[in-house]
Amino acid sequence: MKAMLSIADLERAARKRLPPSIYGYVIGGAEDESSLRANRSGFERWAFVPRPLVDVSKRSQETELFGRRYASPVGISPMGVTSLCRFDGDCAMARAAREVNVPFILSGASTTPLEKVASAYPGMWFQAYVPSKREVIGPLIQRVAAAGIETLVVTVDVPIASVREIEVRNGFSVPLRLSGRLVMGGLSRPRWMVETFARTLVQQGIPHFENFTATRGGPIITATSGDHRAGRAALCWDDMRWVRDQWKGKLVIKGILHPDDACNARNAGADGVIVSNHGGRQLDGAIAPIEALPSIVAAVPDMTVMVDSGFRRGTDVLKALALGARFVFVGRPAMYGLAVAGERGAVHALKLLQKEIDLNLALLGCPDTAGLSKAYLHCSSASGYSS
Amino acid sequence: MKAMLSIADLERAARKRLPPSIYGYVIGGAEDESSLRANRSGFERWAFVPRPLVDVSKRSQETELFGRRYASPVGISPMGVTSLCRFDGDCAMARAAREVNVPFILSGASTTPLEKVASAYPGMWFQAYVPSKREVIGPLIQRVAAAGIETLVVTVDVPIASVREIEVRNGFSVPLRLSGRLVMGGLSRPRWMVETFARTLVQQGIPHFENFTATRGGPIITATSGDHRAGRAALCWDDMRWVRDQWKGKLVIKGILHPDDACNARNAGADGVIVSNHGGRQLDGAIAPIEALPSIVAAVPDMTVMVDSGFRRGTDVLKALALGARFVFVGRPAMYGLAVAGERGAVHALKLLQKEIDLNLALLGCPDTAGLSKAYLHCSSASGYSS
Amino acid sequence: MKAMLSIADLERAARKRLPPSIYGYVIGGAEDESSLRANRSGFERWAFVPRPLVDVSKRSQETELFGRRYASPVGISPMGVTSLCRFDGDCAMARAAREVNVPFILSGASTTPLEKVASAYPGMWFQAYVPSKREVIGPLIQRVAAAGIETLVVTVDVPIASVREIEVRNGFSVPLRLSGRLVMGGLSRPRWMVETFARTLVQQGIPHFENFTATRGGPIITATSGDHRAGRAALCWDDMRWVRDQWKGKLVIKGILHPDDACNARNAGADGVIVSNHGGRQLDGAIAPIEALPSIVAAVPDMTVMVDSGFRRGTDVLKALALGARFVFVGRPAMYGLAVAGERGAVHALKLLQKEIDLNLALLGCPDTAGLSKAYLHCSSASGYSS
Amino acid sequence: MKAMLSIADLERAARKRLPPSIYGYVIGGAEDESSLRANRSGFERWAFVPRPLVDVSKRSQETELFGRRYASPVGISPMGVTSLCRFDGDCAMARAAREVNVPFILSGASTTPLEKVASAYPGMWFQAYVPSKREVIGPLIQRVAAAGIETLVVTVDVPIASVREIEVRNGFSVPLRLSGRLVMGGLSRPRWMVETFARTLVQQGIPHFENFTATRGGPIITATSGDHRAGRAALCWDDMRWVRDQWKGKLVIKGILHPDDACNARNAGADGVIVSNHGGRQLDGAIAPIEALPSIVAAVPDMTVMVDSGFRRGTDVLKALALGARFVFVGRPAMYGLAVAGERGAVHALKLLQKEIDLNLALLGCPDTAGLSKAYLHCSSASGYSS
Ligand SMILES: Cc1cc2nc3c(=O)[nH]c(=O)nc-3n(C[C@H](O)[C@H](O)[C@H](O)COP(=O)(O)O)c2cc1C
Ligand SMILES: Cc1cc2nc3c(=O)[nH]c(=O)nc-3n(C[C@H](O)[C@H](O)[C@H](O)COP(=O)(O)O)c2cc1C
Ligand SMILES: Cc1cc2nc3c(=O)[nH]c(=O)nc-3n(C[C@H](O)[C@H](O)[C@H](O)COP(=O)(O)O)c2cc1C
Ligand SMILES: Cc1cc2nc3c(=O)[nH]c(=O)nc-3n(C[C@H](O)[C@H](O)[C@H](O)COP(=O)(O)O)c2cc1C
Repeated sequence: MKAMLSIADLERAARKRLPPSIYGYVIGGAEDESSLRANRSGFERWAFVPRPLVDVSKRSQETELFGRRYASPVGISPMGVTSLCRFDGDCAMARAAREVNVPFILSGASTTPLEKVASAYPGMWFQAYVPSKREVIGPLIQRVAAAGIETLVVTVDVPIASVREIEVRNGFSVPLRLSGRLVMGGLSRPRWMVETFARTLVQQGIPHFENFTATRGGPIITATSGDHRAGRAALCWDDMRWVRDQWKGKLVIKGILHPDDACNARNAGADGVIVSNHGGRQLDGAIAPIEALPSIVAAVPDMTVMVDSGFRRGTDVLKALALGARFVFVGRPAMYGLAVAGERGAVHALKLLQKEIDLNLALLGCPDTAGLSKAYLHCSSASGYSS
Repeated sequence: MKAMLSIADLERAARKRLPPSIYGYVIGGAEDESSLRANRSGFERWAFVPRPLVDVSKRSQETELFGRRYASPVGISPMGVTSLCRFDGDCAMARAAREVNVPFILSGASTTPLEKVASAYPGMWFQAYVPSKREVIGPLIQRVAAAGIETLVVTVDVPIASVREIEVRNGFSVPLRLSGRLVMGGLSRPRWMVETFARTLVQQGIPHFENFTATRGGPIITATSGDHRAGRAALCWDDMRWVRDQWKGKLVIKGILHPDDACNARNAGADGVIVSNHGGRQLDGAIAPIEALPSIVAAVPDMTVMVDSGFRRGTDVLKALALGARFVFVGRPAMYGLAVAGERGAVHALKLLQKEIDLNLALLGCPDTAGLSKAYLHCSSASGYSS
Repeated sequence: MKAMLSIADLERAARKRLPPSIYGYVIGGAEDESSLRANRSGFERWAFVPRPLVDVSKRSQETELFGRRYASPVGISPMGVTSLCRFDGDCAMARAAREVNVPFILSGASTTPLEKVASAYPGMWFQAYVPSKREVIGPLIQRVAAAGIETLVVTVDVPIASVREIEVRNGFSVPLRLSGRLVMGGLSRPRWMVETFARTLVQQGIPHFENFTATRGGPIITATSGDHRAGRAALCWDDMRWVRDQWKGKLVIKGILHPDDACNARNAGADGVIVSNHGGRQLDGAIAPIEALPSIVAAVPDMTVMVDSGFRRGTDVLKALALGARFVFVGRPAMYGLAVAGERGAVHALKLLQKEIDLNLALLGCPDTAGLSKAYLHCSSASGYSS
Repeated sequence: MKAMLSIADLERAARKRLPPSIYGYVIGGAEDESSLRANRSGFERWAFVPRPLVDVSKRSQETELFGRRYASPVGISPMGVTSLCRFDGDCAMARAAREVNVPFILSGASTTPLEKVASAYPGMWFQAYVPSKREVIGPLIQRVAAAGIETLVVTVDVPIASVREIEVRNGFSVPLRLSGRLVMGGLSRPRWMVETFARTLVQQGIPHFENFTATRGGPIITATSGDHRAGRAALCWDDMRWVRDQWKGKLVIKGILHPDDACNARNAGADGVIVSNHGGRQLDGAIAPIEALPSIVAAVPDMTVMVDSGFRRGTDVLKALALGARFVFVGRPAMYGLAVAGERGAVHALKLLQKEIDLNLALLGCPDTAGLSKAYLHCSSASGYSS
């Protein structure tokens, strides 16, 4: 772990650890992956203007969010089927987030009953994929509330399944269908076969989608195909208002990119939004969240605006906060950590980012993330592109 | 076919199937190929701003054009000598378009009598290359009308032959002269030699240009050279007005890039224009149609403005429609499909694009192509370049 | 020759023909070669907006310049020591220009007496490198006038020698000092050794700079070093006014990049200027002429503004003319031709450009270069970079 | 030395001379090295507009700074632990600067007592790294004054240590801890082992940080780790005002990037600022000094504004002076020279830059650096990037 100096190091290590098809599933973006690239290049537009000779001996990145204080402004985005990357992935991720005291959002496409994960990290958030069927949403909301969860995230940018060609080529799909290619890929990573795949089958059986609805869903490994996303395409703002009525906790809408939709979310009674293009995995060509952020913040100045997609460095986080985000989430960085070393790896990923934030706050001359603002940024014309 | 997930896949497959000189003819652009590249990079300037929580369970890309309803807003651009890519290429292309119910424009440089192709797809359009000689145009128009064709496209961006150096280097020319290089290239693709070349010679004899004028033209394989484009350089707006008088059907001018010429076309009585730089095959350095489009749409808001050149993805189509185009055409994508698997391949190419349009309409939150507008786009500064 | 389809082809062929040190001398730019690259990339900023349906059956690129009609708007820039590239280079170049009827500017750093070259092409121009010593300039002007030359070009962007590291590394210098490296390089190109080097020594002896002053200069091959540029650094506008008084013919100042200097040139009585950064061989980082051109044309609308540096295609020429240049010159393209096939090669280079101009005038829909204007250009945001 | 035609040549040579870990320490930047790249690419935004026909036979780059006349406007930035690059590095550097008569700033992280270095170059400047402890600063200031030093530079952009991953990977740290990797690297450069490492140990013993405080600091080679930067994070403008009161000589603040901080520096009584991002070694993503420069010059027009970071060519220096800088400093270029050939190498680096400045002043048509202004620059759209 000590040799993993950056998220990029973890990414390289994950590549060696995971079967190609699973690694491809994690890393891939939609179609030509232009949003995936834009998510990274969007950060380069902004340069820092550091302010020295400010006392930065005490620095703080502690951030309050929905009435709770977190150790840092970077939490874990919801990601499906983490159990393919690591034995007991969902709980491991939850424990990691709990250990470093940041939010963890359990994906609706997860394979561990949310109640079990919530007992590992009672403060965790839950992300639901909901169809436009109130008879389905209602019981799910009750189940989530019964589990003691206080923050519900509804992801709205997956009305239907996008196509990630890298997955199709690798024979990967959710649910997973067993193909020769997939099996061969697994055999090339014997450690993963033993530690993750075999151990899961032996100790837990074939994982099922446990949290799409109020009741257990189908298995993630199957010989036939099917779309667990059915019904989601009809979901609309009316449904969100109904969800708002049913759900007593905090409500967050994930997948907002237009200022008008941030207003819609506020008007629908949401407590916050996550500006996200789903890590470049849905609509290819969708604007990078870091580019969409400023006008959204301007549109709903009083709302809790969070953001994810493409964050790999503490400095990326600082730029988003300076542009008005209240909180940042990361997906793949935590997944890389998880794949490499389970809970310990995910903790390492989060701590790397925290360390980078801490360090760069000092170098920026802004001792507290709360003090960040656009005044620390310069819209740059010099191009120092990340290689 | 199922392994062909994108137009790029078809392109790669076509490369393996066609003799290098023919592949070079299809793929190539003029001189330094800067327009060819700009046709692609022009799309990157625009990012999507998706709008979730809109009911997208029913989506429609059906589009009315000149009083007919098509299954999608993507038709097939006219391309010459398709018979070099596949046995009976013209009819195969026509049948493919008919099968998926989109417009097909038979090229004036085609080698199957237009009457025969029109009987394969009665609704097809015909594209004429016309010289400034009314005694030549007149009979051609009568022939086209007699064949029952309702839409006539006049291509105006080939006043003379451009130079595609890749073709010259490969010993390729239209008409085709037999050279050692050409023959060697053919031998390296035995399947093409048998299925396309030999079969054509045996079953149909040496192909001739059948549709340049009212009567049959010269053979496409010859030992001497000659320019079938003679006389075209003098063609001017006056001629177009005369054509308008003669032709009772719909009249479309293909190869417009300046807003003033869109106005000229409207004033000359044309029913529509195709904004096109001929796929980067004519004037190298000519503006990319996607870049020229907005000001043209603004200049002739009531006209049917169509566009081609560089479209490879459903998202490219969505961008053009959002910028005001009524319809999109593709050239090479259909040709790749044809080269790989004949009619079935061309159908596959068109269906791929339809599938991508359908999927991405959902992800964009715009259930109907008719609802697309500039509001879904953001002029982007982040660069997520297609690799 | 027929296989040489573009200037780029000639460049590749020249590389194979010339000893590396000489090729390096021709192709190289100053320091980091940023101006050299900018000279090319500057063209990409402009896209063409072609205008079809204009009668382009008769096209003309004939251009009047200083009262003489030339076959095309592209002449040959002055280049020193062409005799290193080809036997009797200066006369071969002159004959080539005469053959295609375009201006040829004999370099002041040439090794054939200007009288001899002028008898090969009586209409040729002469370019002088002058020191700020009137006792040197006066007699030179008289000599030039006595030779019947009507146009005098004074190059002003070489006040002192720039450093082209590629030359230093190759052991190349002017005058040429014999080094082991140089000799080895020559041996690797035996054809050049025989046809150019040996033939020159045998038939003409060691070449001398013949035209720096009114009398013969030093030999170009020497065992010692020295700077023939001495005294040039003091040259100033006062001297130019004095030159103007002495010289009765047309006076052109080469190496202007600032609008104010174009005004200065006009006020000093010059008949024309050549906007040039010396092909990127002098001040590295100097603005590309194609970028400097518009503001210069705007500053001296009534003056004959010519341009060189980086022109490799007919379309480059069209862009410059559209931006207001009256005439274009090329250096290296002619030199590549000369190196590859002597007079015939230089003719080929010029004809390639003429052919491209002719072809692209047709495709642009502008039958006469005189009709070109900014209306045919669009300042482009799509990037279709020359590879 | 004569084969070293540019700073880039020296860099390549240094790479061959130094153990990888030390070379990595010198060349590296923080995190993704985006500021390191931006430091170079920032220069490309500006093109020169040269002005010929100005008498440039006598050129001057002599520059007065704080009442002293220097031979050129390029001095040596402070760099720590030069003794790792060359035996007796600090004194060698000082002597080099003295020889060519430019300022040399001895780093506070140096390993030769400042008194000794000052006796090698009495006019040298001293750069202090100061903690916010007046009991530490006071005696240091007295010591510096007692050594007869007249200019004190306080570096303010290292409140804490940044992370340069290249160093961590190489097992490099300051103080240096002996690791297998480090030793192996040293063995691969036997010449360095003998001439630098062994010679230092034998003749001078293990180097210690001599100038962090008024008394000797710890050794630079140690088996344990520790941070000599402790206490610096609390340093603030109040401390600077106190320093100003204590220090009678010239006071320069190094590491300013915001116009407001330039004002703060002036208000705190500083005599000058060095606009710097520490060569891209501290906050990654910090704006390039060449980009920050213009607004800083505008903010404090009467102050002595100096600049460093990324200067590698004489033309870079000319651009900075034209944008309003009074003086330029270089770090790595001098270090490369030092590593390659000690004092002689550092002299060579400085002379290379002086020669380039001299040459390019002539080519620019501005005989005196004092005459440089923005009028010689053009904000360029053509991209001629350094390869
Ligand atoms: C492997 C993977 C699975 C994901 N699954 C979900 C999911 O189930 N629900 C969801 O809302 N987002 C999902 N996302 C998107 C993430 O929540 C998040 O928006 C995205 O990963 C952020 O981009 P980043 O990976 O660049 O940090 C997934 C992302 C990845 C990489
Ligand atoms: C092989 C080939 C042949 C073509 N022949 C014709 C033609 O005969 N008539 C015509 O109007 N356009 C012709 N075109 C241009 C196409 O109609 C269309 O404008 C272009 O292919 C669109 O660009 P795309 O290939 O990037 O989709 C041809 C294009 C190709 C690639
Ligand atoms: C090998 C070589 C020698 C040159 N010698 C001279 C010269 O003697 N006098 C002069 O005014 N320009 C000289 N130039 C500059 C050219 O006149 C012209 O400005 C430049 O080559 C134009 O750029 P291009 O080569 O990209 O066309 C020389 C250029 C080259 C390549
Ligand atoms: C190896 C190295 C050590 C450095 N040590 C110091 C230092 O001790 N104090 C300081 O103020 N700056 C230090 N710097 C920064 C330099 O003073 C200077 O700001 C930087 O090198 C300028 O960028 P350049 O190297 O691109 O010219 C160091 C830089 C390098 C490369």
